[in-house]
Amino acid sequence: MSKVLIFGHKNPDTDSICSAIAYAALKKELGVDVEPVRLGELNGETEYALKQFNAELPRLISKAAPEAAHVILVDHNERQQSVDDINEVRVLEVIDHHRIANFETSDPLYYRAEPVGCTATILNKMYKENGVAVQKDIAGLMLSAIISDSLLFKSPTCTEEDVKAAQELASIAGVDAEEYGLAMLKAGADLRSKSTEELATLDSKVFAMGDFQVEVAQVNAIDVLDVLARKEEIEKVLENKIAEKNLDLFLFVITDILNSNSVAIVAGKEAAVVEKAYNAPISDDRTIVLEGVVSRKKQIIPVLTDIFQGMTK
Amino acid sequence: MSKVLIFGHKNPDTDSICSAIAYAALKKELGVDVEPVRLGELNGETEYALKQFNAELPRLISKAAPEAAHVILVDHNERQQSVDDINEVRVLEVIDHHRIANFETSDPLYYRAEPVGCTATILNKMYKENGVAVQKDIAGLMLSAIISDSLLFKSPTCTEEDVKAAQELASIAGVDAEEYGLAMLKAGADLRSKSTEELATLDSKVFAMGDFQVEVAQVNAIDVLDVLARKEEIEKVLENKIAEKNLDLFLFVITDILNSNSVAIVAGKEAAVVEKAYNAPISDDRTIVLEGVVSRKKQIIPVLTDIFQGMTK
Repeated sequence: MSKVLIFGHKNPDTDSICSAIAYAALKKELGVDVEPVRLGELNGETEYALKQFNAELPRLISKAAPEAAHVILVDHNERQQSVDDINEVRVLEVIDHHRIANFETSDPLYYRAEPVGCTATILNKMYKENGVAVQKDIAGLMLSAIISDSLLFKSPTCTEEDVKAAQELASIAGVDAEEYGLAMLKAGADLRSKSTEELATLDSKVFAMGDFQVEVAQVNAIDVLDVLARKEEIEKVLENKIAEKNLDLFLFVITDILNSNSVAIVAGKEAAVVEKAYNAPISDDRTIVLEGVVSRKKQIIPVLTDIFQGMTK
Repeated sequence: MSKVLIFGHKNPDTDSICSAIAYAALKKELGVDVEPVRLGELNGETEYALKQFNAELPRLISKAAPEAAHVILVDHNERQQSVDDINEVRVLEVIDHHRIANFETSDPLYYRAEPVGCTATILNKMYKENGVAVQKDIAGLMLSAIISDSLLFKSPTCTEEDVKAAQELASIAGVDAEEYGLAMLKAGADLRSKSTEELATLDSKVFAMGDFQVEVAQVNAIDVLDVLARKEEIEKVLENKIAEKNLDLFLFVITDILNSNSVAIVAGKEAAVVEKAYNAPISDDRTIVLEGVVSRKKQIIPVLTDIFQGMTK
């Protein structure tokens, strides 16, 4: 078998990048010819993690089929979040911690999803199952992924397994999880150098919900007002994305990582669904306060999906 | 959490029944309140296995939601193969060894699929991962599932992992795998007592392939001609199923378990797809010889799916 590409989702976050690198390292130990690659630019947080743990930047690809017949997906499964030509390659494996949707294969495969906070937590288990020790720098990358996905263990997606894995990995990596984690999150929340276009695509995913297409972007911030100061520009970007991808709704979520709250900018013709979902009004300036919401996966996608699945287009 | 139901697919085979029982036994050891149930009548082979290993017959259900909010699927994931009201319950886990299709959740879940020959092989690994010893009779049931799905290790779906798991389980169960296995398969291949309607539904599954609905039934036989003697009656049953479920194709596969070959009776308006898939003619009597084909999962579903996915309705 020729080389197998391993990658996370588009607009990659720290888990998508670090889990691709960490799983590739495990697969190589097991004698499989693999290469971790990425589907988009890094955010500041991931850059910080890669630099801290001496990782090589995975190569950027836009298509998989021209160079590989087989791929492994980490940290995602929905086709619209994957490489554009996903239908032209065979998916050998999926290691993920999200819901399953819009995913279909003609052959059996290895699919490992667990309802934990981070792909790297599952990988930590798979290292053990395969009797392979996690290398120091790889442990640091996996720790970074868990801290990122769990917002330093504060997100409702964070499970005991995530905390336990992070403790093990911090010890192997030789860092203090809390101290390193806060520094990494702050590096990611420094949005000043980002253009508005970058802000709206940094960590943004399209979800199929019943008959509707919904995009949800999320940025972590230390100061939410800093981001809201650019609201008009952001709205223009959202409107463009809606037209370009024929979306029914775009939710741009700004998460205050110190206070564990979010504010969202709402755009698209199905905006009323967001009011219904959170039983709260969208203000005249098209923002809505999402009290206590920090997790897109657990506190946004399921509630919106439930409503959209009961609607017809 | 109230009781969780565990079940395999409709028209249950030995893996669907035995894996539900074996996984329920593991879950109970781990302190979870579960009950293995079934979605249809047993075939002769499964009856034989349950009797040999002193298993209680799982309760028959036709709906899950009236009695449970949460379910665990074994040996299947496609909705049309599952309980009728699958959309009204939450799927907590899937343990499976088939392709993934027509499966969607709004929340993350535990999904464990591996490209091995039998669900019970994955369960054997999960017993170990959880540090739980397999009980003697449960080992016999898991062995029965592997023998059934692998046609006594002769199917191309059978992997080294299946063979190794079967050896371990045979040793725990205190039986000779070859000798017990042949007796079990023969019990299942004794089709004389079955009505034609039963034959056509015993191990039959509907698959969504692109825009098309395809049903594939499979029976194991010692003497294929015995079954073909009832061809006209079988065809009538197939035509009824096609009308009732609005199917595009029905393939009734008779597998010669001693010689590892199959003959199929073909019905439905897309019959030509079968000729294309196997590059062989359907004879005037609507049968086609499938040389060396014994595995629906590996040698039938993927080839048909590939062709149907390239067609529009």
